[in-house]
Amino acid sequence: SRFQYVRGFESEARLLPNTWIVVRIDGRGFHKFSAKHGFKKPNDARAINLMNAAAVACMNEFPDIVMAYGESDEYSFVFDKRTQLFSRRGDKIMSSIVSFFSSTYVMQWPQHMVDAEGQPEPLVATPHFDGRCVLYPTLENLRDYVAWRQVDCHINNLYNTTFWTLVLKGGLTEYEAEQRLVGTFSKDKNELLFSEFGINYNEEPLMFRKGSVLHWRRIPVTVTKEGPTSKADPTPVVRTVTRQKLTVIVDHCDLLQEEFWTEHADVFTSSSVYANGPREAKGAAKGRGRKAKHSSETTTIVEPKEAAPAASEASQRKRTAEQACGE
Amino acid sequence: SRFQYVRGFESEARLLPNTWIVVRIDGRGFHKFSAKHGFKKPNDARAINLMNAAAVACMNEFPDIVMAYGESDEYSFVFDKRTQLFSRRGDKIMSSIVSFFSSTYVMQWPQHMVDAEGQPEPLVATPHFDGRCVLYPTLENLRDYVAWRQVDCHINNLYNTTFWTLVLKGGLTEYEAEQRLVGTFSKDKNELLFSEFGINYNEEPLMFRKGSVLHWRRIPVTVTKEGPTSKADPTPVVRTVTRQKLTVIVDHCDLLQEEFWTEHADVFTSSSVYANGPREAKGAAKGRGRKAKHSSETTTIVEPKEAAPAASEASQRKRTAEQACGE
Amino acid sequence: SRFQYVRGFESEARLLPNTWIVVRIDGRGFHKFSAKHGFKKPNDARAINLMNAAAVACMNEFPDIVMAYGESDEYSFVFDKRTQLFSRRGDKIMSSIVSFFSSTYVMQWPQHMVDAEGQPEPLVATPHFDGRCVLYPTLENLRDYVAWRQVDCHINNLYNTTFWTLVLKGGLTEYEAEQRLVGTFSKDKNELLFSEFGINYNEEPLMFRKGSVLHWRRIPVTVTKEGPTSKADPTPVVRTVTRQKLTVIVDHCDLLQEEFWTEHADVFTSSSVYANGPREAKGAAKGRGRKAKHSSETTTIVEPKEAAPAASEASQRKRTAEQACGE
Amino acid sequence: SRFQYVRGFESEARLLPNTWIVVRIDGRGFHKFSAKHGFKKPNDARAINLMNAAAVACMNEFPDIVMAYGESDEYSFVFDKRTQLFSRRGDKIMSSIVSFFSSTYVMQWPQHMVDAEGQPEPLVATPHFDGRCVLYPTLENLRDYVAWRQVDCHINNLYNTTFWTLVLKGGLTEYEAEQRLVGTFSKDKNELLFSEFGINYNEEPLMFRKGSVLHWRRIPVTVTKEGPTSKADPTPVVRTVTRQKLTVIVDHCDLLQEEFWTEHADVFTSSSVYANGPREAKGAAKGRGRKAKHSSETTTIVEPKEAAPAASEASQRKRTAEQACGE
Ligand SMILES: Nc1nc2c(ncn2[C@H]2C[C@H](O)[C@@H](COP(=O)(O)OP(=O)(O)OP(=O)(O)O)O2)c(=O)[nH]1
Ligand SMILES: Nc1nc2c(ncn2[C@H]2C[C@H](O)[C@@H](COP(=O)(O)OP(=O)(O)OP(=O)(O)O)O2)c(=O)[nH]1
Ligand SMILES: Nc1nc2c(ncn2[C@H]2C[C@H](O)[C@@H](COP(=O)(O)OP(=O)(O)OP(=O)(O)O)O2)c(=O)[nH]1
Ligand SMILES: Nc1nc2c(ncn2[C@H]2C[C@H](O)[C@@H](COP(=O)(O)OP(=O)(O)OP(=O)(O)O)O2)c(=O)[nH]1
Ligand SMILES: O=P(O)(O)OP(=O)(O)OP(=O)(O)O
Ligand SMILES: O=P(O)(O)OP(=O)(O)OP(=O)(O)O
Ligand SMILES: O=P(O)(O)OP(=O)(O)OP(=O)(O)O
Ligand SMILES: O=P(O)(O)OP(=O)(O)OP(=O)(O)O
Ligand SMILES: [Mg+2]
Ligand SMILES: [Mg+2]
Ligand SMILES: [Mg+2]
Ligand SMILES: [Mg+2]
Ligand SMILES: [Mg+2]
Ligand SMILES: [Mg+2]
Ligand SMILES: [Mg+2]
Ligand SMILES: [Mg+2]
Ligand SMILES: [Mg+2]
Ligand SMILES: [Mg+2]
Ligand SMILES: [Mg+2]
Ligand SMILES: [Mg+2]
Repeated sequence: SRFQYVRGFESEARLLPNTWIVVRIDGRGFHKFSAKHGFKKPNDARAINLMNAAAVACMNEFPDIVMAYGESDEYSFVFDKRTQLFSRRGDKIMSSIVSFFSSTYVMQWPQHMVDAEGQPEPLVATPHFDGRCVLYPTLENLRDYVAWRQVDCHINNLYNTTFWTLVLKGGLTEYEAEQRLVGTFSKDKNELLFSEFGINYNEEPLMFRKGSVLHWRRIPVTVTKEGPTSKADPTPVVRTVTRQKLTVIVDHCDLLQEEFWTEHADVFTSSSVYANGPREAKGAAKGRGRKAKHSSETTTIVEPKEAAPAASEASQRKRTAEQACGE
Repeated sequence: SRFQYVRGFESEARLLPNTWIVVRIDGRGFHKFSAKHGFKKPNDARAINLMNAAAVACMNEFPDIVMAYGESDEYSFVFDKRTQLFSRRGDKIMSSIVSFFSSTYVMQWPQHMVDAEGQPEPLVATPHFDGRCVLYPTLENLRDYVAWRQVDCHINNLYNTTFWTLVLKGGLTEYEAEQRLVGTFSKDKNELLFSEFGINYNEEPLMFRKGSVLHWRRIPVTVTKEGPTSKADPTPVVRTVTRQKLTVIVDHCDLLQEEFWTEHADVFTSSSVYANGPREAKGAAKGRGRKAKHSSETTTIVEPKEAAPAASEASQRKRTAEQACGE
Repeated sequence: SRFQYVRGFESEARLLPNTWIVVRIDGRGFHKFSAKHGFKKPNDARAINLMNAAAVACMNEFPDIVMAYGESDEYSFVFDKRTQLFSRRGDKIMSSIVSFFSSTYVMQWPQHMVDAEGQPEPLVATPHFDGRCVLYPTLENLRDYVAWRQVDCHINNLYNTTFWTLVLKGGLTEYEAEQRLVGTFSKDKNELLFSEFGINYNEEPLMFRKGSVLHWRRIPVTVTKEGPTSKADPTPVVRTVTRQKLTVIVDHCDLLQEEFWTEHADVFTSSSVYANGPREAKGAAKGRGRKAKHSSETTTIVEPKEAAPAASEASQRKRTAEQACGE
Repeated sequence: SRFQYVRGFESEARLLPNTWIVVRIDGRGFHKFSAKHGFKKPNDARAINLMNAAAVACMNEFPDIVMAYGESDEYSFVFDKRTQLFSRRGDKIMSSIVSFFSSTYVMQWPQHMVDAEGQPEPLVATPHFDGRCVLYPTLENLRDYVAWRQVDCHINNLYNTTFWTLVLKGGLTEYEAEQRLVGTFSKDKNELLFSEFGINYNEEPLMFRKGSVLHWRRIPVTVTKEGPTSKADPTPVVRTVTRQKLTVIVDHCDLLQEEFWTEHADVFTSSSVYANGPREAKGAAKGRGRKAKHSSETTTIVEPKEAAPAASEASQRKRTAEQACGE
């Protein structure tokens, strides 16, 4: 039609190739939203598990996400630097993620936000998130990015834990607690928690202290198949077959340590596909993204719903206990 | 922390001032999504009403949206050209809209997507939308934009109506119907519908033919108040007070005609606030955006759930029958 | 070659259609450059005429520039809002202008920067300019833009005139002059100039007070042609032919007044070609840009080299005295 | 003033940190420009030396340029990935380079573009260049970028050399030469040159075959100083002092080989300063950019004016024969 020229006003900006794409989303007005829905203070494991479940669903929907990191009302999704998703159109990538996350958050609310009797809390406001795309040219910058978020998590969580302990266990008013913490350093808060309340901050649940780190792992899955063994012999037999399924793992590891990065070195340091030009680049990207094969075999595994405060660090990490998103 | 420098990699691009901002969202893979959920063909009034309800909720949440236009799985939101929402940061505006829309779509699914017995259809996939921001410098360009979408609606709807009539009433296979329509013009399809099936296309529901146009209207609302009439006389009396509430109207008018634009000339042609510099600009924007006052008085009114095919054009438009989003 | 993929890292961002494009260039470090080359204080008419000549050359090279405004070491070029120059690629437009301007500035230096004996000053440093593209969606915004620059010119010129009068005629040191002007308003400076030095600021040369406004005008030019009058009669005759040549005029009008805008209303308010879609847009743009025809007939006219301080305002404006760029 | 709000329409986009910035400029319409000024075919060493001299001047003016590569009418400038020049505002960086290059090109024209008698060719058109900024996230990508340009140089030069040999020595028309070369590969052209004209392409001047590579080198410079040796003994003595001057070298090396990159590994692989946050980044950048110190000691060295065809490869490279830009 004669109106079609308006299409020319759209900008189809593509993100710089060969660069890490981070999509960070953050709940809008979650201070109010969390209060309205009675989130536990300072941390509500149900709410965090719901965030994690929504993020896991995003990874399964967009397998070019190589890792994700979440804390409080925010989640950061890191895409393979070679991704060709939506031809690297930043607004399509970012909007699809934030939309998919939002829908999943609402859809899975009833499973996660249950009260002591197992009844879902009513959803009385509309949870929604803003989103942004940020580019990081080097792995070093990317690691510093996630470190930045994890340090943010630590600082906020130590503060919030001390603050709410003072209020809920110490009987201070919120104003008094705030005043008490003015000018204190980390070690002061650790000391206060221990000496006045017998709380060893380092024994608080990892999920609260470290946030959540999502990544992929191949997990052997044994399935039972029935059928003929060969064309020659049509007699059906029952066999067990073991396959490697790409699965999202919810971890709470320390991203400032080398361990995580060493373990996943293949994901983060694969030599740039661009060295060999775009043909290979496309091939590689397609490999990762071959949705059909890949996601049909995906099992989503997350932490137990209630973070276990007394468990050892090791046992808190990387458990594949429950399937959270039964999609 | 020493990681904070990564913040500097974010770009805070702001959209050109004094320009119409259009956020268009479009369902991702709704071909499959609509099939999976048994959307009626070619139009499912329930699904359209759900889209409309989500869009109405967006307008109430972001009152700087001056109008919205929806058809099929897409919605376009037009912001006041003077809006200062998120300091005109395009990604925050766009992501917040697409996120709010998605969440509302899922939240209101059960009310809208009900079967003949009034039972909600199960939601078995995750509806999500991509989003984009487009700028239009003049009202003429903006009008051409919405005209472009409405013409798109018309062309698709005429095609789909004819196609599905051939299949569902004419007994053709989908392939045969497609072949039958190759090379036909609008008048051929109108003729085919009329001569072979007795269908007058112009009597099809307006909502299907024109899509949905959302805009604001002040509606007088009478409330009962109890209290003293003056400081001098403290005796409480019961009074009825009539207030003008800003309300979203769901209309199905023809945007290629002058009528709509004449009627809302004040909204679309208010002389640029920028002529008088930024101070006034901010004031004006704040006026529009004064969320608390404004939205607490907002009544959201949408079309009846089932579009009435036999009603006259006039009666199909601008009805304020039911409150769709009981937020 | 296998390296060609690097091409994909370029961004071909196009400027928003139907929007005024302003390219502003500004001399880098002209404080030092002007000192090094002994520019007269506060204004060196030779230097300003050189700037003007370079700007005129730019307009002749890029005829989609509808007007230009210059003051001090800066020049703003306003493109037809419909221009399709370089497909509206902002960096190509801006870089070509700033490059063409720079080259011309150096090429024409010897003609303009002459001493009292008519000898050119040696060019002992490399003049260069930064450039930027700014978009203005409405004519109102565009007018405010040029008004902003002209007001800037006025404020600086009044200050500089007073400052250098105090120093050069009043015998104050630069420090004393600066102190004397702290906290003064325009009327104070006018008063000071008049009461202490007998200078009526409003009689200073228009070019200094208002800067320079470049625009196009059709000027009748009479040429003598020799040839047969018709195919039938081959006898060659000599005829005089009068043609309208598009010519750049250097003016010093007040852009805050209506006059300029009324006079050139056709240029600035021609109804948007986009209303009728892109085909016409292209046609129109091509019309304007048809380089060959257009520029072969272009005569560049600028002010006399030395701005005449005593002349009446009217006589200072729009003179077509000398041809500055003999290209 | 009340017009100042228009400032808000400017976008101050900053280039992604920690990324290689390449500014490439390219002569506009140099096909015509070179013809008009009688450039020798296929290569005019004078014109290439002029391009090189202008590029050398740019490096001295903007010392954050770590290397530059030129061929034909284009030049690419590579900035230190950590540069904070103009706060990484891409348009300021790009426009300043293209402007400085253009001015220098015109200023140095008379020294370089001389005829057999040493008389400068008149400059009868305005040389100008377009410019663009491209970002490359990794060194690998950057190397591929310059390789891309150098391969382009090779392909064009082999073609042009063969084409003009056929025309100038073989007596073919331009059309015949073109036809003759249709469908030929590199080895065919090499063969043709050798068997028909006795030309060994590999003995053509390096500057033509490889283009020009500009980089920095510290060169010991011995200066004679006169003055007292110490405060105690005021007797002035004459001493020779040897200093390391940062100097631009014009080279014609093969950028597809490792040698160049190994030799300058310190420049290209210095561990990212961003790992330690922005403070160090600034320090480092300032170090590089400390204009005063740095450029006062800069000696610009370029190739001899006429590329010596018979000289050995080694002798053609990195000579510091003449000072081209006597700034
Ligand atoms: N009680 C409780 N509150 C939480 C929890 N997780 C997040 N929140 C709240 C605490 C903060 O007020 C808020 C997150 O802070 P933000 O800086 O994102 O602020 P907010 O979302 O209110 O505003 P924004 O729209 O993001 O600028 O969410 C939780 O597990 N329990
Ligand atoms: N049956 C039915 N289908 C609908 C209705 N509204 C929208 N759809 C379907 C028809 C189209 O296949 C689809 C919208 O077309 P699109 O061009 O947006 O394609 P789709 O969303 O599949 O792909 P995309 O991810 O947007 O590229 O949604 C409806 O009311 N009834
Ligand atoms: N004496 C004299 N100086 C002039 C004339 N025109 C311009 N200038 C000087 C005065 C100012 O110092 C300078 C223009 O001011 P700018 O704000 O552009 O500063 P400058 O170019 O030094 O720095 P920049 O690189 O633009 O940030 O040029 C003139 O006609 N005579
Ligand atoms: N004869 C001669 N011509 C040269 C020399 N160096 C460059 N040229 C000419 C040959 C090409 O026609 C032209 C460079 O090609 P471009 O692709 O840049 O085309 P051109 O500048 O004409 O158009 P453009 O404005 O860049 O799109 O410059 C030289 O040394 N000798
Ligand atoms: O939203 P905040 O205050 O936590 O901080 P931010 O998200 O970095 O700021 P913004 O949302 O304005 O980009
Ligand atoms: O998605 P389509 O095919 O309807 O068309 P579009 O939305 O204009 O295209 P894109 O989503 O790729 O911008
Ligand atoms: O250069 P200035 O200080 O006159 O002001 P500006 O040109 O508006 O600032 P910038 O060059 O930094 O955009
Ligand atoms: O100008 P060309 O044709 O050599 O190729 P380009 O410079 O890559 O193209 P453009 O100038 O249009 O970006
Ligand atoms: Mg935020
Ligand atoms: Mg938040
Ligand atoms: Mg947050
Ligand atoms: Mg689409
Ligand atoms: Mg869709
Ligand atoms: Mg659609
Ligand atoms: Mg400036
Ligand atoms: Mg300046
Ligand atoms: Mg200036
Ligand atoms: Mg080009
Ligand atoms: Mg060129
Ligand atoms: Mg070229």
